[in-house]
Amino acid sequence: MTKFTITPWEVKGNIDYDKVIREFGVSKIDENLLKKLEKHTKKLHPFLKRNIFFAHRDLEFALQEHEKGNLFMYTGCGPSGPIHMGHYMVWSFTKWLQEALDVELWFQFTDDEKFLFKDMSYEEIQKWLYENMLDIIAIGFDPKKTHFLIDTKHASLLYPEAVKVAKKLTFSTVKGAFGFTNETNVGSIFYTAMQAAPCFLPSVIKGKKMACLIPHAIDQDPHFRVTRDVIPKLGFYKPASIQCRFLPGLGGISEDGKLSSSTGQAIYLTDDEKTVKNKINKYAFSGGQTTIEEHRKHGGNPDVDVSYQWLTFFEEDDKKLEKIYHDYKSGKLLSGELKMILIEKLNALLKDHQKKREKAKSMVDKYIYHG
Amino acid sequence: MTKFTITPWEVKGNIDYDKVIREFGVSKIDENLLKKLEKHTKKLHPFLKRNIFFAHRDLEFALQEHEKGNLFMYTGCGPSGPIHMGHYMVWSFTKWLQEALDVELWFQFTDDEKFLFKDMSYEEIQKWLYENMLDIIAIGFDPKKTHFLIDTKHASLLYPEAVKVAKKLTFSTVKGAFGFTNETNVGSIFYTAMQAAPCFLPSVIKGKKMACLIPHAIDQDPHFRVTRDVIPKLGFYKPASIQCRFLPGLGGISEDGKLSSSTGQAIYLTDDEKTVKNKINKYAFSGGQTTIEEHRKHGGNPDVDVSYQWLTFFEEDDKKLEKIYHDYKSGKLLSGELKMILIEKLNALLKDHQKKREKAKSMVDKYIYHG
Repeated sequence: MTKFTITPWEVKGNIDYDKVIREFGVSKIDENLLKKLEKHTKKLHPFLKRNIFFAHRDLEFALQEHEKGNLFMYTGCGPSGPIHMGHYMVWSFTKWLQEALDVELWFQFTDDEKFLFKDMSYEEIQKWLYENMLDIIAIGFDPKKTHFLIDTKHASLLYPEAVKVAKKLTFSTVKGAFGFTNETNVGSIFYTAMQAAPCFLPSVIKGKKMACLIPHAIDQDPHFRVTRDVIPKLGFYKPASIQCRFLPGLGGISEDGKLSSSTGQAIYLTDDEKTVKNKINKYAFSGGQTTIEEHRKHGGNPDVDVSYQWLTFFEEDDKKLEKIYHDYKSGKLLSGELKMILIEKLNALLKDHQKKREKAKSMVDKYIYHG
Repeated sequence: MTKFTITPWEVKGNIDYDKVIREFGVSKIDENLLKKLEKHTKKLHPFLKRNIFFAHRDLEFALQEHEKGNLFMYTGCGPSGPIHMGHYMVWSFTKWLQEALDVELWFQFTDDEKFLFKDMSYEEIQKWLYENMLDIIAIGFDPKKTHFLIDTKHASLLYPEAVKVAKKLTFSTVKGAFGFTNETNVGSIFYTAMQAAPCFLPSVIKGKKMACLIPHAIDQDPHFRVTRDVIPKLGFYKPASIQCRFLPGLGGISEDGKLSSSTGQAIYLTDDEKTVKNKINKYAFSGGQTTIEEHRKHGGNPDVDVSYQWLTFFEEDDKKLEKIYHDYKSGKLLSGELKMILIEKLNALLKDHQKKREKAKSMVDKYIYHG
């Protein structure tokens, strides 16, 4: 039996995503829904075809509202460390979806959350806020349609809306949803109301009731489950969501369900070529045999090999990916060679990203919402 | 045995102020301290001589810092209805003290608190916010030295400081201090952190550790007790306070410890002459005898007579007040006559106030803090 934990602050164990769908009460993204989505987006992102974005809430409703020009997107970043590939994949998909749907995106930086939940100083969080903004800008969001909301900086916009949510949420409710205790700090207890605010803030700003679509990793679902119960009482639509699996940790999916910065085994967007090479070679769990002879004879197991799993996220070419799968399984491709394919893929991606990240330094103000 | 309840949201019963001092752990303002205070203020306000401002925390420390030019004042208003005489007395004293000490005053409008704790809409609270600002401006604070902070409007200033407080406050602590339950809403649970922020926000803005003195009615003490425990951990001074009794309710001090708007028996700063006259005549509890004959013979009891009690707040002339006391006690002054003295006193005060309140309508922006 698999055991796993998923909360917004902890993800561990070998995740059974079918069980997640049942327990969280979300819906599977099926072929039928993918076809409907494709009508709006023209193409399907590999993450959709590969079932990486695998679950949703009210996606059909969001598409109906998109039809009427009444949809915006919302996602977020909790700034408490460098951005890793697990974040990158969610946001690169978000960028694709925003462009495909041609809608506004509200990007919330939850600096209050990270300060309240982590043993880090306010100043450290502010440093990471700036660093993280650079990475997000480098992903290439359209500054004309993308608005950064920083919880502390934009509190005059967010807090008045958050208190409207908070008034309808009791301690019992958040205790149940997030596993809080009497020793939880009062900022953390309040916080989910701040994360709820961007679900309807654009409706408040534009003076019309709009639908909201949130791409996010499945661990954030408890926040929006609570939000969905509350905000119809305030006269707004329940936010829709499109939810993804976690990028496996380098240490292997059997030990670590989510790529966590705290393990020290993540690939960061600021890592240089050598670091990426060393990390993959040293940490990426291999599905290969112990000797070359054995590997040639029995082949590797791509289904547990982390390098292969990562390529399902970052190699967009289906045919290339299929070839790698079979070559590895047959023993034609060695573990070291497979790792090298991933290393080259990541380093090409990161080289490009880091160039854009330098340029982002002069662009921050363009993204910050100025009302 | 007297029974009473004092929390920031409920005051009832016949209050034994000596018991309050013991239970709240505040200190009595004694003759010695009054002399020290007088050195700073030159004169003593009647509320000090008459023991209306009767208790304090760290007032001596505040005076030491005042000596060094390192003191500011902070007080607040929760906008949820019209301003009554009980509010007025605290703020007219606050104005006097600010002028006497020649210091800056930060005036917080806790529109979030009133929205979270009361069964009122956000819009109603915003209406009262505006109305209450007019009354406070009319009291005559110096706009150059007085800064209005509105919790929702100034959240970008207050919320980042409030989360620093909130991180150090558990649900257990606020539960104990304010009597919260699991069914309390999460905004109310967080709120005390917003009320703590102005105790050190001026220190943050000015970049130096300053002392804070808060004039307030004793019911607000639980907020600042919690604040005093937390903010030294953030590197700031514990706020000092100077605390007053409640203006008795018109219905009599034995039934109602605090003048509450909700009883419908309060005098509002916007009441016209006739309304004041009718309210005092109808509701003000009398210490007189049932017939004129009895009254002339036995005299009245000024110690329970609400009109007389109110005059101890609003008649500044000690000699006049003494004469009224003795004339009433001897039976020379009838209850109706005593009521008329109060009615005339209040109406003169309100006529002047209401004129200033009209002028205040063009001055609001001068008072709102613009950073």
